[in-house]
Amino acid sequence: MPSILILNGPNLNLLGAREPQIYGAATLADIEKMCAEAAARLGLTVECLQSNHEGALIDAVHAARGKHDGIVINAGAYTHSSLAIADALSAVGLPVAEVHLSNIHKREAVRHHSFIAPVSVGMICGFGPIGYVLALEALTQHLTL
Amino acid sequence: MPSILILNGPNLNLLGAREPQIYGAATLADIEKMCAEAAARLGLTVECLQSNHEGALIDAVHAARGKHDGIVINAGAYTHSSLAIADALSAVGLPVAEVHLSNIHKREAVRHHSFIAPVSVGMICGFGPIGYVLALEALTQHLTL
Amino acid sequence: MPSILILNGPNLNLLGAREPQIYGAATLADIEKMCAEAAARLGLTVECLQSNHEGALIDAVHAARGKHDGIVINAGAYTHSSLAIADALSAVGLPVAEVHLSNIHKREAVRHHSFIAPVSVGMICGFGPIGYVLALEALTQHLTL
Amino acid sequence: MPSILILNGPNLNLLGAREPQIYGAATLADIEKMCAEAAARLGLTVECLQSNHEGALIDAVHAARGKHDGIVINAGAYTHSSLAIADALSAVGLPVAEVHLSNIHKREAVRHHSFIAPVSVGMICGFGPIGYVLALEALTQHLTL
Amino acid sequence: MPSILILNGPNLNLLGAREPQIYGAATLADIEKMCAEAAARLGLTVECLQSNHEGALIDAVHAARGKHDGIVINAGAYTHSSLAIADALSAVGLPVAEVHLSNIHKREAVRHHSFIAPVSVGMICGFGPIGYVLALEALTQHLTL
Amino acid sequence: MPSILILNGPNLNLLGAREPQIYGAATLADIEKMCAEAAARLGLTVECLQSNHEGALIDAVHAARGKHDGIVINAGAYTHSSLAIADALSAVGLPVAEVHLSNIHKREAVRHHSFIAPVSVGMICGFGPIGYVLALEALTQHLTL
Amino acid sequence: MPSILILNGPNLNLLGAREPQIYGAATLADIEKMCAEAAARLGLTVECLQSNHEGALIDAVHAARGKHDGIVINAGAYTHSSLAIADALSAVGLPVAEVHLSNIHKREAVRHHSFIAPVSVGMICGFGPIGYVLALEALTQHLTL
Amino acid sequence: MPSILILNGPNLNLLGAREPQIYGAATLADIEKMCAEAAARLGLTVECLQSNHEGALIDAVHAARGKHDGIVINAGAYTHSSLAIADALSAVGLPVAEVHLSNIHKREAVRHHSFIAPVSVGMICGFGPIGYVLALEALTQHLTL
Amino acid sequence: MPSILILNGPNLNLLGAREPQIYGAATLADIEKMCAEAAARLGLTVECLQSNHEGALIDAVHAARGKHDGIVINAGAYTHSSLAIADALSAVGLPVAEVHLSNIHKREAVRHHSFIAPVSVGMICGFGPIGYVLALEALTQHLTL
Amino acid sequence: MPSILILNGPNLNLLGAREPQIYGAATLADIEKMCAEAAARLGLTVECLQSNHEGALIDAVHAARGKHDGIVINAGAYTHSSLAIADALSAVGLPVAEVHLSNIHKREAVRHHSFIAPVSVGMICGFGPIGYVLALEALTQHLTL
Amino acid sequence: MPSILILNGPNLNLLGAREPQIYGAATLADIEKMCAEAAARLGLTVECLQSNHEGALIDAVHAARGKHDGIVINAGAYTHSSLAIADALSAVGLPVAEVHLSNIHKREAVRHHSFIAPVSVGMICGFGPIGYVLALEALTQHLTL
Amino acid sequence: MPSILILNGPNLNLLGAREPQIYGAATLADIEKMCAEAAARLGLTVECLQSNHEGALIDAVHAARGKHDGIVINAGAYTHSSLAIADALSAVGLPVAEVHLSNIHKREAVRHHSFIAPVSVGMICGFGPIGYVLALEALTQHLTL
Repeated sequence: MPSILILNGPNLNLLGAREPQIYGAATLADIEKMCAEAAARLGLTVECLQSNHEGALIDAVHAARGKHDGIVINAGAYTHSSLAIADALSAVGLPVAEVHLSNIHKREAVRHHSFIAPVSVGMICGFGPIGYVLALEALTQHLTL
Repeated sequence: MPSILILNGPNLNLLGAREPQIYGAATLADIEKMCAEAAARLGLTVECLQSNHEGALIDAVHAARGKHDGIVINAGAYTHSSLAIADALSAVGLPVAEVHLSNIHKREAVRHHSFIAPVSVGMICGFGPIGYVLALEALTQHLTL
Repeated sequence: MPSILILNGPNLNLLGAREPQIYGAATLADIEKMCAEAAARLGLTVECLQSNHEGALIDAVHAARGKHDGIVINAGAYTHSSLAIADALSAVGLPVAEVHLSNIHKREAVRHHSFIAPVSVGMICGFGPIGYVLALEALTQHLTL
Repeated sequence: MPSILILNGPNLNLLGAREPQIYGAATLADIEKMCAEAAARLGLTVECLQSNHEGALIDAVHAARGKHDGIVINAGAYTHSSLAIADALSAVGLPVAEVHLSNIHKREAVRHHSFIAPVSVGMICGFGPIGYVLALEALTQHLTL
Repeated sequence: MPSILILNGPNLNLLGAREPQIYGAATLADIEKMCAEAAARLGLTVECLQSNHEGALIDAVHAARGKHDGIVINAGAYTHSSLAIADALSAVGLPVAEVHLSNIHKREAVRHHSFIAPVSVGMICGFGPIGYVLALEALTQHLTL
Repeated sequence: MPSILILNGPNLNLLGAREPQIYGAATLADIEKMCAEAAARLGLTVECLQSNHEGALIDAVHAARGKHDGIVINAGAYTHSSLAIADALSAVGLPVAEVHLSNIHKREAVRHHSFIAPVSVGMICGFGPIGYVLALEALTQHLTL
Repeated sequence: MPSILILNGPNLNLLGAREPQIYGAATLADIEKMCAEAAARLGLTVECLQSNHEGALIDAVHAARGKHDGIVINAGAYTHSSLAIADALSAVGLPVAEVHLSNIHKREAVRHHSFIAPVSVGMICGFGPIGYVLALEALTQHLTL
Repeated sequence: MPSILILNGPNLNLLGAREPQIYGAATLADIEKMCAEAAARLGLTVECLQSNHEGALIDAVHAARGKHDGIVINAGAYTHSSLAIADALSAVGLPVAEVHLSNIHKREAVRHHSFIAPVSVGMICGFGPIGYVLALEALTQHLTL
Repeated sequence: MPSILILNGPNLNLLGAREPQIYGAATLADIEKMCAEAAARLGLTVECLQSNHEGALIDAVHAARGKHDGIVINAGAYTHSSLAIADALSAVGLPVAEVHLSNIHKREAVRHHSFIAPVSVGMICGFGPIGYVLALEALTQHLTL
Repeated sequence: MPSILILNGPNLNLLGAREPQIYGAATLADIEKMCAEAAARLGLTVECLQSNHEGALIDAVHAARGKHDGIVINAGAYTHSSLAIADALSAVGLPVAEVHLSNIHKREAVRHHSFIAPVSVGMICGFGPIGYVLALEALTQHLTL
Repeated sequence: MPSILILNGPNLNLLGAREPQIYGAATLADIEKMCAEAAARLGLTVECLQSNHEGALIDAVHAARGKHDGIVINAGAYTHSSLAIADALSAVGLPVAEVHLSNIHKREAVRHHSFIAPVSVGMICGFGPIGYVLALEALTQHLTL
Repeated sequence: MPSILILNGPNLNLLGAREPQIYGAATLADIEKMCAEAAARLGLTVECLQSNHEGALIDAVHAARGKHDGIVINAGAYTHSSLAIADALSAVGLPVAEVHLSNIHKREAVRHHSFIAPVSVGMICGFGPIGYVLALEALTQHLTL
């Protein structure tokens, strides 16, 4: 049974409370519950982790080697600034699915560029919490090819 | 039963034959068959259309008013140059899911910017043909909210 | 009696229905009727044509040689991308009046630059449908100099 | 009877004498006479003012509050540098029609951007002195909506 | 008793009337009264001057030599275009505190750069009329070091 | 009695020792003592926190919800790179006063842009330690409106 | 006997009539006759096609698969905007020789970049109609290597 | 006897007092005296005028028509921002010699570009007050050709 | 005996395992052993520290004051984004030698700029693990001057 | 019998030995032999010269005045940096055909711009050694018009 | 008697013959004769040297140490590309007067930037051959201060 | 015994005399002596060459084929402009170590980019003359791998 690490970056712990007109009403716990249900349906194991610390996210990516088969990551604002997280993902070599709740291409220019994208299989953005579930489906498909 | 228009732009008629190392081995017929099967599962009607002509794609978007409930579009190279298609999508006001077979953020700079993105609910890219199925799921979810 | 070709580009067939907060409530038929009335007052013949196809607009410009004495053009979104339409206008050498319903300088940056402007006598933008009538007046004045 | 302020900026007092291949042979007095005639026809009162001083133009815009119903402005070279005049127009809140004798989009790049445009209803450029008359017509139309 | 010149630039004479959602409801007279009261508390003399003329502001800066001990300046839109006012401030060599009612970093890009900033001790922006009082306090502190 | 969180970012723990020609001779303890005295005078409670860790600053912003009524922040070098801190401030929705000891507009270009500014009420920079006191005054004023 | 498709893009049907000071006096028929003569001399079959429609040019490129051994293309103004034509050329994988009548590097900046160039064997520009003949020679040489 | 207008722009009235390490110790009166002496030697009449007002400088340029045979101008900081002064010089059509006391190419980037240069015969910068004398010699030479 | 701190930033703990075609086969332990041996030969004491946390690296730089005589730093991906680490190095004032295993000038553009370089004595890049030894030699030489 | 100078710039003496995957296997001697044979066929005299020295190439261009009727030049890397060679070509006023072995538009960005192009009749690139022969044909055609 | 080296760069040996509408009808010999006459009048010794070789110009600058008291240089096209000549001038430390026959600010953008300017006392451009004489006068004045 | 060519570019012959605050007090002869001593210690043969002529440096690189096993190069100002030297290094294919006496990343922006870097194994800069010795050590290590 393949295992997927679901990583969430800075400020995503505030979901539901934080600017719902942009990020929606679901909390992070809601999203992680949706992921667990989807994982059960898809025959996956998932582990969820959120941190506001760039270094902690890098440590988590490193620790995924030999333990997980893929990574779903929403790096939040670090998406747009962290070459270091991208290097970590590139270094461990696991397939990565990038997720964003909002459509980053519709927001401020600084959010249009992703350091994570060039080291990911693909990106899903703008569809809200369902994006995490779609990412799990996409990774499942990717792992079976 | 909601109806979705699936629009494919220039050169996508060559899928399977065209540079399979970038676009994969599936033909457009294969993808449209996958979409039909997913639509049946999701309780959707789908109509598929491909054209190499920008004007024909605009005409098709216009014709979708009052006929379809959403649009899945892979505008191919017009993604990066056609404000006119984006204006058409904006004018008809249907929810749009943007799809790309390859991860456009990993390719040449000219492919990083999408005129379609600002008028779409969200984008799915990089996961190959499964991206169309994920887009149908995302639109289904979007239409039920 | 001088003859003027009035060309409208992509999505202008949707006028009235399309985003009236930007483009106003008048339909393209309303505008063409206003132009016909103004032409009668100004002693002009007018012919109106709209297309969503860049190539069809170029063909129409070519066909205007030897048939019309001037062109009023609202190239819609092609204003900002089509060097080919501009080349066509330059090639046939008729006086051109560029019209835009909205003030393109107040909208997104991509709409600030016009490929049509450098091959036109002048531009009128932001005054809604009356802009077409003003353009006919301006061309009349230009032709009598 | 609505009242319109017609403002002309730096160097426009030299019209007729100044580079006629760009600006035409009409003098500023000729243009103001044309405006007066058009105003009579349109049922408008007009007041004309020209200054080479940016501050004097701002003072004139301020003084228009409660006295005029609209402004026609050709800010000359200040078009391209004066955020202060634009702020003044924005502050008094009257409808503004921007005029240029030459087609500013056909000249040097520095003349392509207008600080006045974002605070104006619309712009008319390239048609020579008739542009002022067209602007009065457009403002008349705008005020009656 | 140190003496401070309080200079206000273009359009600030319209405060209260001008776009209160950006600039607030206080008039320039209100602000100058607040400054006088704060000056009394801080042991300062203040002189207030407003002009819409760039040259008049430069003349005022020159006249401050040998007469004042510091300058509080809100150069309005000239902040973003006037190297000449900046040169004047640099030439007279008095300590300068730059004030803006709105937070210029939250507005259009053209307002993010200040020619005044490099020749000022510091800047206070975004706090409305109280910013002038804070600037007087800051200059007082600066003069006593 | 309103409560204010005073956050200091990387390297500000070295104040006094670190490049006094830029940052002055006062230590962070001196500044925090000045803030406590000003708070007593203004009827405020203050809590002070410094960290070199971006994640720790985000955590502190989150923790301020429901506990403090405003934030004074000098994010140090993170001012110019941390969209994540800005997102945190935006998410908790408290009024923010941004402070910098030096005039960031007079230094290297990389220090001219602030990610914090667009989510702050206002900014005070260049006046040294007194800037923190001015920020407390400004926030007090802001909270009483 | 190898077969070459000679494709001409927008406005090239006007050759001879269109701005002869830039494009010369030869008509498209003259050029196609020169090509036919050169083809006879070089042992080639040629087919000629001109269209003002981007989509029609793409369709023609697709149709060349299995029918022609190489393509000579002068994409006119689409040279500078059409990633879609370039993608079509790349997809069919035939050797391409790019031709321009004028020296595109001596004209406006927008004509300096070619989307066709990166998918072509080489480019010949500036030598007028003879450029097509040189391109046929170059392709002949390329096909025999 | 040819007559030359010597125009000096903003802040040049402070010469001698203003930052002598950049601009030298000579006052404007010293420079005007040097010019008068050189004029006598060269057989020229000179008239000198300084203003901090952009509009006043434009008025002076206009007034030079029919009165002077050439203009020596040091537009100070307006050199780098005033398209309006450049338009005035272009409009009156007299030969212009541009002077700067300092070498503008060695200073901040904003001072590297001159709006005056494209409408001048030539520029002399960096040699201090002698530059005005050299400009008079150069204009004399120019007028005798 | 001078003491040198050897700091390694994010992902360098994965050396040997991580993309050996870019970073080589040596592990971080191998490199630290090489440094220890070189230090013994050069008469230096070395202390080694690696962290994926930007804040932890800043803390370590601060702690070096009064304890070490120089710093060798390979800040990994933080090289290209961390003004905060650069500020820390600048604040403690110790001589710094910057090292990179790969030649950063041959890689993606984002890796060409170093925030560390302007606060370092010099940089050594591209020579693999031997670069650390060369840096120790260079610092030894620097300390004896 | 017209005479053509064939100039080759830096590193072209290494052809055949130098990176044959980019420049092909032919040596410079091979190319010069091909040119001699083509010249005989076309009724031309040719003189060949290669130098790695920019100044020597300029001297050779100067010496061509009155001696040759046209120049074929492959300026190698100087193509992209030497305004001086371009000035020399412009000064002597002979017709120039620019040649490049590789398609410079497919290589690094620095090789996309040519200083030679604006002073040449046309350019041929990407077709390898045959490009020189095509250039001789094109110049022959050009000289007979 | 001070000695001045007069250096002329690439293509200036063609003066008189080369594009006289830009550079005038005087030959380099004419200019050197004018310089000799002016030198006699000013009490200077001059030595003249022209080369098309960048390296030869650098060698000449080096050789001026201990032999000349100043340099007048017209580096021709190397003005805009040669950091190496600028470094040479900076290294020898003699006062430099930069001369250009044409007004470089009125020509193509590439000629607006001078590498020589930042290491020169001042620049004289646009006045034709008399510019060399003015430069000698300016250097004489500079040497006597 | 491996042989290394040590190449020095323009102005490095002036070392010691030239701006010692940037380049240090050592002469080129001192550095070459240090290199000879280090070579003896490392078991290398070295040959040293300096030229101010770009072409002479290219010739020297060409001549190194078959004669040397590696190149240490300090190309001086040509580092930042000479694609031709870079092409020469790339063509001969020997391992290259780039050296700069000063830390080029701390100087003017034009010195931050190196054309030599992409064709070198690595770069050492900022450590003064010892950099050449470190480069010899690094090349020795490189040659033995």
